[in-house]
Amino acid sequence: MEYPQESFVATTFAEDSFWARRREVVRVRTLRHQLQMLKRTGRYDAFRLKWHPSYSDPPTVYPIPNHQFWDSDIAKWIEGACYLLTDHFDDEIDAAVKELVHMIQEAQHADGYLNIHYSVVEPGKRFTNLRDMHELYNAGHLIEAALAHSLYYKNDDMLSPILKYVDLLAATFGAQEGQLPGYPGHPEIELALLRLYKATGLSKHLQLAQFFIEERGNPRGGKEKRHYYDVEAEARGESGHDLPMYFPAARSYWYQQAHAPIVDQKTIEGHSVRAMYLLTAVADLVRINQPTSGIGAKFLPAVHQLWSNMVEKKSYATGGIGSVKKWEGFGIDYSLPQGTDEGGCYAETCAAIGVMMLAERLLQVELDSHYADIMELCLYNAVLTGMSLDGKAFTYVNQLASSDQDISQRHEWFECACCPPNVTRTLGFLGGYLWSHTLKDQSAVVNVHLYTSATLSLKVSRSTVKVQQRTDWPWNGDVNFDIRTEGPPVDLRLRLRIPGWAKSWEVTPRPEQLDVRDGYLYLSTEWLQQNPQFRFSCPMQALVVRPHPLAMQPVAYVTRGPIVYCVEDADHPWEQHHFKVTQPARHVKWIKSEVLRHEIQRTIFDSTAPLREEQRSQPDRYVAIIAENGVAGELDTSAWNRQIAVESRNAVVGERRNLCFIPYYLRANRGGQGQMRVGLRVV
Amino acid sequence: MEYPQESFVATTFAEDSFWARRREVVRVRTLRHQLQMLKRTGRYDAFRLKWHPSYSDPPTVYPIPNHQFWDSDIAKWIEGACYLLTDHFDDEIDAAVKELVHMIQEAQHADGYLNIHYSVVEPGKRFTNLRDMHELYNAGHLIEAALAHSLYYKNDDMLSPILKYVDLLAATFGAQEGQLPGYPGHPEIELALLRLYKATGLSKHLQLAQFFIEERGNPRGGKEKRHYYDVEAEARGESGHDLPMYFPAARSYWYQQAHAPIVDQKTIEGHSVRAMYLLTAVADLVRINQPTSGIGAKFLPAVHQLWSNMVEKKSYATGGIGSVKKWEGFGIDYSLPQGTDEGGCYAETCAAIGVMMLAERLLQVELDSHYADIMELCLYNAVLTGMSLDGKAFTYVNQLASSDQDISQRHEWFECACCPPNVTRTLGFLGGYLWSHTLKDQSAVVNVHLYTSATLSLKVSRSTVKVQQRTDWPWNGDVNFDIRTEGPPVDLRLRLRIPGWAKSWEVTPRPEQLDVRDGYLYLSTEWLQQNPQFRFSCPMQALVVRPHPLAMQPVAYVTRGPIVYCVEDADHPWEQHHFKVTQPARHVKWIKSEVLRHEIQRTIFDSTAPLREEQRSQPDRYVAIIAENGVAGELDTSAWNRQIAVESRNAVVGERRNLCFIPYYLRANRGGQGQMRVGLRVV
Repeated sequence: MEYPQESFVATTFAEDSFWARRREVVRVRTLRHQLQMLKRTGRYDAFRLKWHPSYSDPPTVYPIPNHQFWDSDIAKWIEGACYLLTDHFDDEIDAAVKELVHMIQEAQHADGYLNIHYSVVEPGKRFTNLRDMHELYNAGHLIEAALAHSLYYKNDDMLSPILKYVDLLAATFGAQEGQLPGYPGHPEIELALLRLYKATGLSKHLQLAQFFIEERGNPRGGKEKRHYYDVEAEARGESGHDLPMYFPAARSYWYQQAHAPIVDQKTIEGHSVRAMYLLTAVADLVRINQPTSGIGAKFLPAVHQLWSNMVEKKSYATGGIGSVKKWEGFGIDYSLPQGTDEGGCYAETCAAIGVMMLAERLLQVELDSHYADIMELCLYNAVLTGMSLDGKAFTYVNQLASSDQDISQRHEWFECACCPPNVTRTLGFLGGYLWSHTLKDQSAVVNVHLYTSATLSLKVSRSTVKVQQRTDWPWNGDVNFDIRTEGPPVDLRLRLRIPGWAKSWEVTPRPEQLDVRDGYLYLSTEWLQQNPQFRFSCPMQALVVRPHPLAMQPVAYVTRGPIVYCVEDADHPWEQHHFKVTQPARHVKWIKSEVLRHEIQRTIFDSTAPLREEQRSQPDRYVAIIAENGVAGELDTSAWNRQIAVESRNAVVGERRNLCFIPYYLRANRGGQGQMRVGLRVV
Repeated sequence: MEYPQESFVATTFAEDSFWARRREVVRVRTLRHQLQMLKRTGRYDAFRLKWHPSYSDPPTVYPIPNHQFWDSDIAKWIEGACYLLTDHFDDEIDAAVKELVHMIQEAQHADGYLNIHYSVVEPGKRFTNLRDMHELYNAGHLIEAALAHSLYYKNDDMLSPILKYVDLLAATFGAQEGQLPGYPGHPEIELALLRLYKATGLSKHLQLAQFFIEERGNPRGGKEKRHYYDVEAEARGESGHDLPMYFPAARSYWYQQAHAPIVDQKTIEGHSVRAMYLLTAVADLVRINQPTSGIGAKFLPAVHQLWSNMVEKKSYATGGIGSVKKWEGFGIDYSLPQGTDEGGCYAETCAAIGVMMLAERLLQVELDSHYADIMELCLYNAVLTGMSLDGKAFTYVNQLASSDQDISQRHEWFECACCPPNVTRTLGFLGGYLWSHTLKDQSAVVNVHLYTSATLSLKVSRSTVKVQQRTDWPWNGDVNFDIRTEGPPVDLRLRLRIPGWAKSWEVTPRPEQLDVRDGYLYLSTEWLQQNPQFRFSCPMQALVVRPHPLAMQPVAYVTRGPIVYCVEDADHPWEQHHFKVTQPARHVKWIKSEVLRHEIQRTIFDSTAPLREEQRSQPDRYVAIIAENGVAGELDTSAWNRQIAVESRNAVVGERRNLCFIPYYLRANRGGQGQMRVGLRVV
């Protein structure tokens, strides 16, 4: 049970838990909604390999055909459906999965090849543009779907064709004579192959993943001793100035983390989803090989380096990553503006899902609560915000501040539809993120990473151990544990994550000695046998926190437990300008004529204002936070009129008002004009 | 005498004045150094129209051939030489000008065409790529050179071939049947044509400039009713994805201020030099037509709007403009990082020269000290910093903070060598920036914009009026005026700019009534006749100033009078990391392995520290400013280790030290490692 995509089956969410309610929405509404969208857009029938009118559309993101990802959209939906079918059977969903799998079987070429675009639109051009096209990315998602399918359906209807396709890939790619020494522009297949290896035990699956990872960014690859993407581009006859839209200059291979071998990369760069999927695979390769072994010891420092750079210098308060729209990814260190009109903020939903994936793998390599803290931060904020409460509308970009160019809103679907089904499948196997465990003979170790009302049932030899949590998380930090064993006694050990945001915590009854290692409380078999019911408490309170001083963001955020808060115009009808502009554009006298002046006077948050909690039940149950007289006024910038720099400090004018903070994930669910902000200006 | 390029001849700098010393360096060393560079690089002989090996080089900035600007390099050197020959005749310089002019004469095609690249490298392709190629830009500089040449040599050796070329251009471009409805990608010819119109009085010169200005950015131009650059690109058979290096996306015509008609542009965008040259022409068109007339009234609001946007939201403390390297130009509003590792800073020398040009034109349209304030700011800081004290090394980019990627240094020349000769010619006609004047019958009005020891001699009817300033500007704010008239009395009126940075000012003897309008003190004929000697004083003192709060730069600058200061490692040998990093990169424990950590702990400036002035004489005379214990310590960011946001405020640790500020223009003249910073972090 090393993967959450498998281990989730051991978890049952309590019906009234926070996540059971969200997963219920996904199961009942989202899966169906997304199935409709697949059908309406042509994706559902695409594996029938007929021409679709949209195949003639010019690419929105040159040079990638808009339908290039369709294989993965279908695969991710199948994957999510299989996870959710585990909870409750559903005729319609089941029938759709079966029909799609049948289409996939039929779409496979005699040699195993399986891809919509290169079968219908550009036959004969397979594997000629690994850099830009998503052929291997799609293959990776098909593998993940096949694994989920085989886990639920207990048959090989999907896995069998996929294994045949993987055989073709394994024969095609590698360092042997006659093989292509290439690797995917968009990582994904690497992590999928490692999961496949676990299922099949076939070393060729491990070896192909390892080849893709080790060869990546090799400046002297293959027989030609050149970068594979250069060789490939030359073979395509590509001009060096014919730039993909996401390349700021020719050979911007850092876009896909291929500018240097992974072990030589010192900062996390480029497309953030690619970076996360890649590092998830690298971390898993470390785990498989043990962190102290040759391969493991080779790659672990690189993962640490890149993770550290990401968390400390390139992450938003919500856990979101990526500030640059052009390449959907990372900017320079500490460049983290909150919105489009402040320099950009991307924080793609899929990227935050990728952070969770990576954090989960790292927890398996080394149990340190830091990884689980970041995983929890992403889940409750940057990921959860990606879907509306009704489960039918989604975000792709998750800015921390709205602007006229980009208001805070969700959409029912996207042309590039990676995010919606990614949220579906993530919530589908969410149980696997809550805890990890290892079993051996009559003993079990359970690491509790996330808290929510749920039960883990483990078959340990001839016994069944049930670890139950009861809690009102994320609104209340009390968690009641109940351990029950059916059958002969089991040596159970429990490790509870102590959240990094907790200012204090306690266990009741209190153990004589508290054994805390790397942020986890280690509870012994003996203690658990004496205390099968106990409580873990870490009081949640509203805090005002600040970003790293070098981020040059004179702002403060409000958080409470794992939740990051924002302000919305729905609670502040006086706000018309994204909590920045109190006066609309107006004409002012400039020398002897009139000039249009946009008075951007940011709402100033008094970070010392008393914070009051307010339990709310609409449109969902949550804790709002009221900062009494939290608006200190507006920033008066009149001293800078017609000036570049003046001998003045920030001055605040205007009236005090209350500020109401709501969870960031809840934004854009309660009407309003899509005006929202997380980090509020402080003086 | 409406143009400073002509009116400068009326000014004589006192030998001991600040600017006389700089101009002497330019005359004696820079002109010769640049002549050598022209010869060494092949530019000097390029108008012989022989092949040069470098013509085969791939373009550094695709798609512009590296030699594309050579015509303008030669022209600007001729122009500067002619201004400086006015002061002192010089055999070598005179001979070189004559030889170059002879080559230009010989290089002209029978139909008047005159361009190196399209004569030697791509004959037959003239006028096929106005968007990218610098054909009309070069023509503009040839016109300016010809005007300077004719003013000094009093012959038509250069003007005559240039007029023939302009005739060809006037026949080629326009709205008539058979003409090309295009306009230059890099403005320059517009302002040159307006100056030419003044010299020739020929309306075709005015009309061509006006056509270029009015047609620019027309989305429905020409017979095809389409954007000219689209029509042109299609004719070249260009792919929409074959992007010039400076275009972030296809059709990024805002790069050259051609995304919309000028009157519809609300923010200043794109390449900053192009923007300034264009607006200088637009302002001059307004002046020629009167601001209240049809054309003038049409364009003046646009100039105001764009100037206002530039000064208030897109200018650096030094007067430099442009933060984005990719397009050498403007970022979004208030995005003004100081150096490469903070998000970028460009502040090209030529762009600041362009701001001076535009400000000077605007002063002719409406006398307001605001324009002269900005002109002075640019001159003493963003422009003057572009040349070393010895006159032989130059900057192109003028960042406000050095970094490992871009240290503070000068170079003897550049492949794209626009800046060095631009500084030369600007200092050549600097006298024309000091004051403007209008003469009528027996009366004269003199507007004093800049202060320095110099004398303006005006022939008014049969008299000569001499207005003399004596001052130690920019180190001392006392200016002694001495008015003398030879011949019959003249009705002289004087208007003195009151610097915006002055906290107080006085005139001695004190006029009974002070007539101040738009920042100028108006002195009447009567008062001047009674007080031909008087003193204008505005005490200079060191100030700590701050950028606009929305620039998100928690920094402070030190200024004194018109001078913006910086700190350099030459005065602070303890500083090794650009006044940002006090600890070099080191390995720290990260989970269970080591991670390379770059401890960026910025030097914190105590903005309340007492400032002491120190007169220095090496390597030049200047006033240094010592902030006693001005280093408050370093920023302690340890609370953010492994964290994204924490409940902490900035903490300062480490020892106090003195800080020494020197004028920004003086940087990189005294050894050291090129570590420099203008805006220092404050808490």
